Amino acid sequence: MKKFLIFFGLIFYFCPAQNLKVNKDRLESSWKELKNFGVNRSTNGNNRIAFSEYNIEALDYLEKKLNRMGLETNRDAAGNLIALKKGKNNNLKPIAFGSHIDAVPNGGHYDGQVGVLGAIECLEVIIENKIITSHPLELIIFSNEEGGVFGSRAIAGSLTNESLKVITASGLTNYEGIKKLGGDPNNLLKTKREFQSLHAFIELHIEQGSILYDEKIDIGIVEGIVGIRWWDVQIMGFSNHAGTTPMNKRKDAMLAAAQFILGVNEIVKSIPGTQVGTVGRIKSFPGVPNVIPGKIILSLELRDLNENKLDSIFNLIENNAKKIAKETGTSFSFNSIPIGKSAFTDTIIQKIIKDQAVELNLKTKLMPSGAGHDAQEMIHVAPTGMIFIPSKNGISHSPEEFSSINDMKNGTQLLLRTILKIDKIDL
Amino acid sequence: MKKFLIFFGLIFYFCPAQNLKVNKDRLESSWKELKNFGVNRSTNGNNRIAFSEYNIEALDYLEKKLNRMGLETNRDAAGNLIALKKGKNNNLKPIAFGSHIDAVPNGGHYDGQVGVLGAIECLEVIIENKIITSHPLELIIFSNEEGGVFGSRAIAGSLTNESLKVITASGLTNYEGIKKLGGDPNNLLKTKREFQSLHAFIELHIEQGSILYDEKIDIGIVEGIVGIRWWDVQIMGFSNHAGTTPMNKRKDAMLAAAQFILGVNEIVKSIPGTQVGTVGRIKSFPGVPNVIPGKIILSLELRDLNENKLDSIFNLIENNAKKIAKETGTSFSFNSIPIGKSAFTDTIIQKIIKDQAVELNLKTKLMPSGAGHDAQEMIHVAPTGMIFIPSKNGISHSPEEFSSINDMKNGTQLLLRTILKIDKIDL
Repeated sequence: MKKFLIFFGLIFYFCPAQNLKVNKDRLESSWKELKNFGVNRSTNGNNRIAFSEYNIEALDYLEKKLNRMGLETNRDAAGNLIALKKGKNNNLKPIAFGSHIDAVPNGGHYDGQVGVLGAIECLEVIIENKIITSHPLELIIFSNEEGGVFGSRAIAGSLTNESLKVITASGLTNYEGIKKLGGDPNNLLKTKREFQSLHAFIELHIEQGSILYDEKIDIGIVEGIVGIRWWDVQIMGFSNHAGTTPMNKRKDAMLAAAQFILGVNEIVKSIPGTQVGTVGRIKSFPGVPNVIPGKIILSLELRDLNENKLDSIFNLIENNAKKIAKETGTSFSFNSIPIGKSAFTDTIIQKIIKDQAVELNLKTKLMPSGAGHDAQEMIHVAPTGMIFIPSKNGISHSPEEFSSINDMKNGTQLLLRTILKIDKIDL
Repeated sequence: MKKFLIFFGLIFYFCPAQNLKVNKDRLESSWKELKNFGVNRSTNGNNRIAFSEYNIEALDYLEKKLNRMGLETNRDAAGNLIALKKGKNNNLKPIAFGSHIDAVPNGGHYDGQVGVLGAIECLEVIIENKIITSHPLELIIFSNEEGGVFGSRAIAGSLTNESLKVITASGLTNYEGIKKLGGDPNNLLKTKREFQSLHAFIELHIEQGSILYDEKIDIGIVEGIVGIRWWDVQIMGFSNHAGTTPMNKRKDAMLAAAQFILGVNEIVKSIPGTQVGTVGRIKSFPGVPNVIPGKIILSLELRDLNENKLDSIFNLIENNAKKIAKETGTSFSFNSIPIGKSAFTDTIIQKIIKDQAVELNLKTKLMPSGAGHDAQEMIHVAPTGMIFIPSKNGISHSPEEFSSINDMKNGTQLLLRTILKIDKIDL
């Protein structure tokens, strides 16, 4: 027993960082404070839509907090908030970590936010324990994640200036939004960072699916992030009086849209696998009860880890649209909005996360991410890792989204250990 | 031949009114002027939505015109504009005629407007020929026809104060809208007129269907107006992340809506007859590409001359919704918005219109109206007649709505003769 204690004492002496404990109460308080910026008091959902006043105010609030912690902060041209902590050797590439604080309309209070608050908590622990890492540390709060991982795509250099014209959920264009957020849209392309310009990037996030929760697993180690494709689908029919136009003389864009929506569902389900397809947005024109819609615009989203599969599913959907168009006297056009290609995380970082989790007695599972994340873009800039914690019943993008404070603490503890471990090794 | 001429001379002597000719050029100028209030320069459509600035300005413009013609005008509590021309015996009940000037969004320039301009032209001819009718004459420009024949329903006494809360196409409630239009929403119920308080009501209107145009008939004599029913249909599913929720774990309100829309179409077409059913408006919540819609609100409209048939069609639709709800894990609720019951015009007035049309060498057809009209409400106040002119290709509620100036002239001429004939007889 004595020998055993001496052995552990030596470990702690040589690895003092492994002793660090994140502060669960402080993490919970931070979560409650951030929630105030945009909570919908009737649904308990989150209206901190990218570029909304809530988003602006919350980012200002977090920036002040980071400054009080003694960190330098700045906003890059894409409106990403960056906090810097110097390392022992500032010629080394920084270790970056972070996530986002924007939400879908009436979304939840965990998606993105857990990662940002966990990252801040890691810095709190590092600072209060006076730890100086070898590498500089960089916390990134990405802009407009929900509107197509805008901020991280800017860093990855996968945006063009065209993206500035896109109208976001707030009603503002990305141009207007990132300007409001303290960015510099006229210099958007300068946000780009070079390949391998960071030592590593790590993102903590909620799973947003039900695998970890259903299987009672503490931690998901993300092996890859599915590719996501969006289209604006426009269906042109012929607008006419709903009372005087016989049923057989109509070119009803709404009817064509209904057939299309059912077709998307059937095609996506007809193929084995975990691919998903969704129509989430729809607008009819002129959009009144007594006029046959002459135009429908709707969104189509497809996701899978296999890009070739996405190609072939879209081909089936497009062919089905041609058939519907013929039957209903309408026409379809598809405007593709590239969101994110499937991307795989760094296997060395996967292993580090796994090893640290084992030391923390956390049960893990290697899994793909069905959701897109900033991490998928950061893969183009740095060896990247991603840590998932369970989502109750897999509910996300909803007021009922929930992860326990204990899971948040576990994820944060693992993030901290991963950062400190990565600081010690070459990747 | 000599006897024949004497016979005709006598007719003209005793019936000088039958000699009156409407002024086609003046009618065309009036049409062009009114079009300026709300024409959409890119589509050539009409944005004179009820209660819009265009609506307010156009009504002010017409009121000034009527005043310049020497007519007294006023606005009733529902925002209807009324112009009065005294008769020989002002104890007699007035003969009323008119229509509306509001349009559906991006609608046409004939629906309603032809009836108002034709009615004004009749008054122009009567005034310039110094004709004093026995009965007083009353021109009515009804408010918010397109949003559920609001103004005429107020006159018919079929509105409650609840209707004031309804949000209209302009974004304003009826309360706000009729106030803007010079009405007095706090006294809405005082707009009601008693049964048989008018000698007659006549409305000139475009057919908005293709029967007259296809069959090359000049005039439709309306035998009745179809009943119209509206529902707001709410579909509740469960809002969740579009990337992490497997296809078989979704409660997708959009998918249920698509099945519902197809069902409405199939049910309405499955029964013989001329009934129509339309879903014109749809909104998804939260309405973004990456969230499975947890809620859909859409409009359902049904129309037929037979009220019992409307009951049974709605029953089929409601039962189908229950089936869809079960299959998709969603729930449906229907909020009924009463619009107008089917109503039949006065047979004596039908005959007068027919006789006058024959004298004008106009080919006529007795027909139902698939569209709702202010006339259907005025049936509760007065013996009512309705005159249709052809719509090119039956297109209406669209920028491509078109009726020729010659048809407008024919309808106006027939309206004038009908008014003057009705003035001479008991109904």
